[in-house]
Amino acid sequence: MKALKDRIIADGVAIGTEIVKVDSFLNHQIDVALLDEIGQEFAKRFQGIEVSKILTVEASGIAIACTTAKYFGNIPVLFAKKASPNTMTEGFYSAKVKSFTKGTVSDVRVSKKFLVPGDRVLILDDFLAHGEAAFGMAELVRQANAELVGIGAVIEKQFQGGGKRLREKGFLVESLAVIESIQDGKINFLI
Amino acid sequence: MKALKDRIIADGVAIGTEIVKVDSFLNHQIDVALLDEIGQEFAKRFQGIEVSKILTVEASGIAIACTTAKYFGNIPVLFAKKASPNTMTEGFYSAKVKSFTKGTVSDVRVSKKFLVPGDRVLILDDFLAHGEAAFGMAELVRQANAELVGIGAVIEKQFQGGGKRLREKGFLVESLAVIESIQDGKINFLI
Repeated sequence: MKALKDRIIADGVAIGTEIVKVDSFLNHQIDVALLDEIGQEFAKRFQGIEVSKILTVEASGIAIACTTAKYFGNIPVLFAKKASPNTMTEGFYSAKVKSFTKGTVSDVRVSKKFLVPGDRVLILDDFLAHGEAAFGMAELVRQANAELVGIGAVIEKQFQGGGKRLREKGFLVESLAVIESIQDGKINFLI
Repeated sequence: MKALKDRIIADGVAIGTEIVKVDSFLNHQIDVALLDEIGQEFAKRFQGIEVSKILTVEASGIAIACTTAKYFGNIPVLFAKKASPNTMTEGFYSAKVKSFTKGTVSDVRVSKKFLVPGDRVLILDDFLAHGEAAFGMAELVRQANAELVGIGAVIEKQFQGGGKRLREKGFLVESLAVIESIQDGKINFLI
């Protein structure tokens, strides 16, 4: 997605070899016009696939999911909540998600009421890095006996391997910008 | 806002005398069609007021802010991040927010880069209860020497007094549904 890559080049900040900050337009301050284009692009990428619900995880995925849902005919969005493990889990599906950046493990949870057998779920998130969040959400879908029909990421950091692992599991993964490497402050795109 | 009140009556769940759960359509699962109507209604309520940025706090405010921003000509959204106090605060404005529901105190923070003098800020959130989140965000705006031009809540729980306190401080507050009391499982609306 050209507009997105151009924006990452213009306003993304490379830190070391692993991190690209996009907090000026995607996950702290949000450019809602770009967000709308992102939603349209996801709808195009998953065209022809029946989706009944979009699943994401708080907080950065919410804006992306809600904007994309419009282009799938206003289907519901469900955002998983992050919580420290070992708190109340009744009435929830729950999966553990490791954060490589923060060095923490948290639970992601969704109410059993809102993820049900028969749901055809599209998972969306801002980043696809090691794939931990996506695998966690896929696990929620599995627990609910719903069907996972696709996974979309705004930015995939290919060198962290999450996309590869998800595709090897047979999941359909679409990323709008794929970063091959980050070196010397430069962000190198695969596509 | 009639569509919203009707929805709260139909799908909101009253718990005790203080809590109304709207997780089936507003802050866990999200009805994006209703969200769009909410955005339009906020634009109508704050018509004629120049707004350059919408400020909210993660996670439930994000969808509301992004949808509303469209109806203000795609102005940027900034969402404050919640963090435990005493962690890194450099480069951030920070304010403490008490949660009456959870019995916790957290910091809300925004990067100094994205809230600047000259910004005309509209604060939006899902609930206005004791007003702690709104006062916290107002404090961020004050620290940035930006101007707070209005505060909007989807649902105000009038009996918890936050709206009154904010209006007494001279802030312009608009709430799309105002709950006067919750009794015996019934939600009573003021307007």
